[in-house]
Amino acid sequence: MGCSFTVEETDATSQARLGTLTTPHGRVATPAFMPVGTQATVKALTPVECRELGVEILLTNAYHLYLRPGVEVVEAHGGLHRFMGWDGPLLTDSGGFQVMSLSKLRKITPDGVVFQSHIDGSEHLLSPEKAVAIQEGLGADIIMVLDECPPYQATYDYARESMDLTSRWAERCRAAKRRDDQALFGIVQGGMFADLRADSAQAITALDFDGYAIGGLSVGESKELLRAMVEATVPWLPESRPRYLMGVGTPLDLVEQVARGIDLFDCVIPTRNARTGTLFTSQGRIVIKHARYSDDRQPLDPECLCYACTTFTRSYLRHLFQAGEILSSRLNTLHNVSFYMRLMGEVRQAIASGRLEDLCERMEGLFGPVETEPGRG
Amino acid sequence: MGCSFTVEETDATSQARLGTLTTPHGRVATPAFMPVGTQATVKALTPVECRELGVEILLTNAYHLYLRPGVEVVEAHGGLHRFMGWDGPLLTDSGGFQVMSLSKLRKITPDGVVFQSHIDGSEHLLSPEKAVAIQEGLGADIIMVLDECPPYQATYDYARESMDLTSRWAERCRAAKRRDDQALFGIVQGGMFADLRADSAQAITALDFDGYAIGGLSVGESKELLRAMVEATVPWLPESRPRYLMGVGTPLDLVEQVARGIDLFDCVIPTRNARTGTLFTSQGRIVIKHARYSDDRQPLDPECLCYACTTFTRSYLRHLFQAGEILSSRLNTLHNVSFYMRLMGEVRQAIASGRLEDLCERMEGLFGPVETEPGRG
Repeated sequence: MGCSFTVEETDATSQARLGTLTTPHGRVATPAFMPVGTQATVKALTPVECRELGVEILLTNAYHLYLRPGVEVVEAHGGLHRFMGWDGPLLTDSGGFQVMSLSKLRKITPDGVVFQSHIDGSEHLLSPEKAVAIQEGLGADIIMVLDECPPYQATYDYARESMDLTSRWAERCRAAKRRDDQALFGIVQGGMFADLRADSAQAITALDFDGYAIGGLSVGESKELLRAMVEATVPWLPESRPRYLMGVGTPLDLVEQVARGIDLFDCVIPTRNARTGTLFTSQGRIVIKHARYSDDRQPLDPECLCYACTTFTRSYLRHLFQAGEILSSRLNTLHNVSFYMRLMGEVRQAIASGRLEDLCERMEGLFGPVETEPGRG
Repeated sequence: MGCSFTVEETDATSQARLGTLTTPHGRVATPAFMPVGTQATVKALTPVECRELGVEILLTNAYHLYLRPGVEVVEAHGGLHRFMGWDGPLLTDSGGFQVMSLSKLRKITPDGVVFQSHIDGSEHLLSPEKAVAIQEGLGADIIMVLDECPPYQATYDYARESMDLTSRWAERCRAAKRRDDQALFGIVQGGMFADLRADSAQAITALDFDGYAIGGLSVGESKELLRAMVEATVPWLPESRPRYLMGVGTPLDLVEQVARGIDLFDCVIPTRNARTGTLFTSQGRIVIKHARYSDDRQPLDPECLCYACTTFTRSYLRHLFQAGEILSSRLNTLHNVSFYMRLMGEVRQAIASGRLEDLCERMEGLFGPVETEPGRG
């Protein structure tokens, strides 16, 4: 594999760990948050801005890029890194989740999933082999197996069958893999059932992947259920491999799940909420459209050093939002990603100094309790 | 006044001149193009980016800012410069044009114009005195008189009456002016009639403003008519004051009108066309959505040093446009403004070296002949 992972330090009072993920395009200090760049761009940001904000790894989406611009176009550029102007580590999600959530017509067969493009209605078959081929063409540092992501209302029987299918697909993905400079991560499923999560984790880890993701969460379930599913899974995952909780979460989720042993996260929340005007600050959430900010001449977050916070007032940011200006999405995204990156730095520092619980309490005071928002990119 | 203007050099073979406009917020080398920042932001760009692209002066719109966020909000920040984070020279348009083009219901009376807000339908009276008070509250370096901007199909009689009204309003604006650190520019009207243009220029210059704008053009008329109206006006304008052609134009327009003696321009074309995917390059116009760019791995403009051109391929820019990504608007705008700034640098250099006609021919080869697009910001 082209990636390696080392655990540098483990927390004495939780399952949190400090690690380093080494990829062909550089290192990532974990626990890490991966901003979502679904269509080969983090919405509203440039790669240079991501780098300056301290982002070390980005996620993009194989399903979206397969449909548009097409794998050949990306491949002709020499891969996704060159195509999108990001020379750091990259992860592609396989597209399983998007096939489920975006396609109008889909049919799951043992061979794969037949779906209709959300762009032009054309019909496609996504098999495990094709999911790997697409991701090898795109050339991210880390690629994901094809999984089936059941809805959170799925019955026990549905979740078990789906989990078995995901296991068979995982095995086929592993067999189909050709490139040795990419890491392949398996995905644990099992719906909202603790015993199925344990079964899935054992089945998937038996296949020996370079890392393990926990999928099918943050799809509408309660915080308690999210926590329970993570707790049912992590004990079955090997210490030596990175653990990636897909599509999670809020600032509070991140800290809580780091304490449960998670190393990697992705979520659309910081970027999507930025565009809809919800901003994360050291004083809690700010909904920038509120009239109370119309003449508020303070910085958005006095503790933040991002360009938005050091240059403009809340009043101006509210004006931009109300006026529907593109600069509103830009500055809000810049800030929220800055907040997430700073938070992950604090998380790593807290693990190193044994103060993760304090950070968790602080985040709970600022942002909890709010239900988890769906967020897989 | 807080501004001064000096003509440094005049072209031997045209009416073009090189000048320096000095304002309380810095100098502007003329001929200059002012990017349009209607709502206190150049759409999709930050002030820092504008500065880095070589922008020396921005235009914003008093009508828009009066309606949202309101003059008091801007005033409480210490003015528009602080509000929008731009510490360079600023010009505000009075709003006369926007009242005509955006308001659903309007009634012109000798006292001013009654209009309905395009945002919330509320009714407002914009008088010459109020237009000045608003712009004094906003605090730009250069403010504009309230004018009536007749449609280009206006009859001779309508255009003459409208022009007389604009003259009376100009006089009232001058009388209403209180701040002595702002320059006030008069606006010449007169529809599409050369004799009325000359009459208007004489009436407005008799009032002795700090600079003179030519308004009511680029509203749908032909290139010939645009040229004729400028030619009918410029001879009546004093050499010693800056001349500003409002809402013009394309790259070719700029060079052509500089040769007719114009010093200042504003136009939405570079920014609006960027968002709709029409890009100006050293190889001519590029409509980025075209399929021919889907796998074009060249830079957008090999001669341009902007971030978009030095980092990404046409193929990637097309992908961003097709995907409706905010980064598409950002990179396209960055490039088009970069192109305009470089062009104005070439214009000034061409005047200095007596080669403006060559530049005009080159622009004609690249961009002409295309009808003028309406563009007042």
